Order: sequence, then structure tokens, then C-alpha cells
Amino acid sequence: MPRESGTKRAILDAALELASVNGISGTTMDDVAERAGVAKGSLYYNFSSKDKLFEKLLLEGVGALTECLRTARAGLAGWDAIESMVRALLKLLSENRALARLMAAEILRTDRVWQHSLHLLRQEALGEFVEPIRQTGGATTLPDGSPDRLTLIAGSVFGATLMGALDWLVFDPDRSVEDVAASVLYALSGRLNT
Amino acid sequence: MPRESGTKRAILDAALELASVNGISGTTMDDVAERAGVAKGSLYYNFSSKDKLFEKLLLEGVGALTECLRTARAGLAGWDAIESMVRALLKLLSENRALARLMAAEILRTDRVWQHSLHLLRQEALGEFVEPIRQTGGATTLPDGSPDRLTLIAGSVFGATLMGALDWLVFDPDRSVEDVAASVLYALSGRLNT
Repeated sequence: MPRESGTKRAILDAALELASVNGISGTTMDDVAERAGVAKGSLYYNFSSKDKLFEKLLLEGVGALTECLRTARAGLAGWDAIESMVRALLKLLSENRALARLMAAEILRTDRVWQHSLHLLRQEALGEFVEPIRQTGGATTLPDGSPDRLTLIAGSVFGATLMGALDWLVFDPDRSVEDVAASVLYALSGRLNT
Repeated sequence: MPRESGTKRAILDAALELASVNGISGTTMDDVAERAGVAKGSLYYNFSSKDKLFEKLLLEGVGALTECLRTARAGLAGWDAIESMVRALLKLLSENRALARLMAAEILRTDRVWQHSLHLLRQEALGEFVEPIRQTGGATTLPDGSPDRLTLIAGSVFGATLMGALDWLVFDPDRSVEDVAASVLYALSGRLNT
């Protein structure tokens, strides 16, 4: 994940730690100040509200995710790109468990002030999957091959990877990333459809 | 979802409504009593603690999910069973959005008193996918075809469906369930692997 130096970073890290356990609603600015070891004045100097703080944290997280997917598919197309992106995504999630957990919970909310900007970034992240999916060509056999449709398929690919990562990290942490990637890719490879 | 009559049901419904917006940590027993329109004495008579209340709610939800999957795959095998289960799961999630949202957030927690019982039920729900996956036969081509491995693949199939459902319900609610099922099944059908 991107790094910012000093107080701002300490605040973001403290907010993430607290919210990944207590949820965003269960985390107060007082808690964040205490955990980060900064005065409340300094906290509010850096982030004018709790909403601004968590918006920054979440947008930063989705931004890093998009970057990771973009790097993983560089120079590849179709299924090769998807394979590479699934592996990279599993690695990223395993290295940023608290953020993964927080983002997974936030994906489902519709009542946040940052909903609109998060939605746009989310589309951007899923968009990284859309091009390889289009390249596999078969989407034209669907009732419609519209961008919405491709995003829906991309969401399923992402969901298969995310849930594989969560199962792994929570219940089966001794497996290697390659081994987990093999299972997720198995579900997406067509070997179920025989 | 299963129905219980009277006060107990009113309490569970109120708790679900509140927690799907504010999270479990952000929901107090006072809030629940007020929303359900019951006295606190009556609330505690029915559920001795907030933990017991949410444990009941979540276990009930996962139980209904398992039942739904079991019904959907009755008489079917392999890919046919998987298709039928994906459709049934999408329908169930769309009809129980608050519970779907709460369960999706809780899946990721490792610090709840009900973690163990929820884990066992979760294995049971995923187990419904394991048998059809085994029937498609290909799992034997993996480094190991152990039960853990099959559960991991089942988790990916479940995740693809869950994320498809969330995209649909949050961002694209005008689509039909059949149309969403087609997108999820596309991701799992092997048409990406061409």
C-alpha cells in the first residue's frame, strides 16, 4: 500500500487497525488520536472529519489495488492476464489483511458519504479485469456484451478471488499463495463445466 | 429465512435492521429494544446478551442458506447442480439483502464469540458445493484433491456468486436474476479460459 510519511501515515494506520476490529461506526476520532499517539488538534489538522479520514483510507486502498492489477496484466492478454491478476490480487490481500477486511465490509454499504468516489474507483479496479475478459471473446455470446455486463463478470472473477483469499487467510493460512491461486483459477478455468 | 413468531422474531428483525446499517459493534441492546418496541426486561428474557442475539441471527442465516443450496441441487449432479445453486443463491440474497450484507461483513471476522459455531455452519454451507465439484471430476488433477482443497474451490464459487449478487443489488438492481446468473455462470463456465 502507498506510504505517506509522518503523522498523516500514523493516523491512517491507527484508523485502519481500529476499524478492522470494531468497524468504522465503532471507531471514534478519540480512539484514533489515542492509538496514533497524536493530539486531537493534530488529528483534526490532518483530517477535518472522521468521514474524510476513512474516505482517504478506502480510496487509497482501492487505488493500490487498481495499480496492482494494472501491473500484473501488463503485456498479457485474455486468460494469461486473468491468471496473473488473480495471483497478484491474492498476494496483495495477504499482505494487507486489515485493509482487505475493511474494504470487503465497505463494498456492501450504500449509506456512506464517500460512496460516490469509492464507486468510481471500484469501477476503475474492476475495469482492469474487463479488458482481458473482452479479449477472451466469448462475452459476445451473452444476451448483451455491454460494459455493465462485462463489469458484472469482472465482479464475479474478483469475488471468487476475494473469497478464496479470505478462506485462506482466516481458515487455512499455512497454504502457499500458489496453492490458493490454483484453487481459485480452478473455479474459473472451466474445469467445473464438464 | 426462517420465521419465529412474536417477540423473539421482532427482536431479531430489529437487530438485523440496525446492524445492517451501523454494524454489530455500532448497535446496542438499548437500540434493539427501542426499534423492536419491547421493554429491556423482555429483550433480556429472550436473549441473555447481545452476543447471544447476534449469534442466533447469523446461525439462522447460514442455516437458511445451506437449506436453500441443498434444495437447489436435489436430483442434480456436477455443473447442472452448480448452475442451479448459483441461481438459488442469487435469489435468496436478493430477497434478504440486510442479512446478506451482515453475513458478508461477518465472514471476515475472527474475534467473535460465535466464531466457532459460525465456522462449522459455514463449512456445512460450502459443503453443499463440494459434492458437485467433486462430481465434475477434474479436481483430481490438482496437486491434492483433499477436502480442504475442495472447500477452497467451493469458497471461490460462492464468492463469485456473492460478489455478483452485491454488484447487482447495489449498482444494477434493474437486471433480472436470470441475467445476473448468466454473468456469474459465465465467469465459472470456462469461457474465460480460451
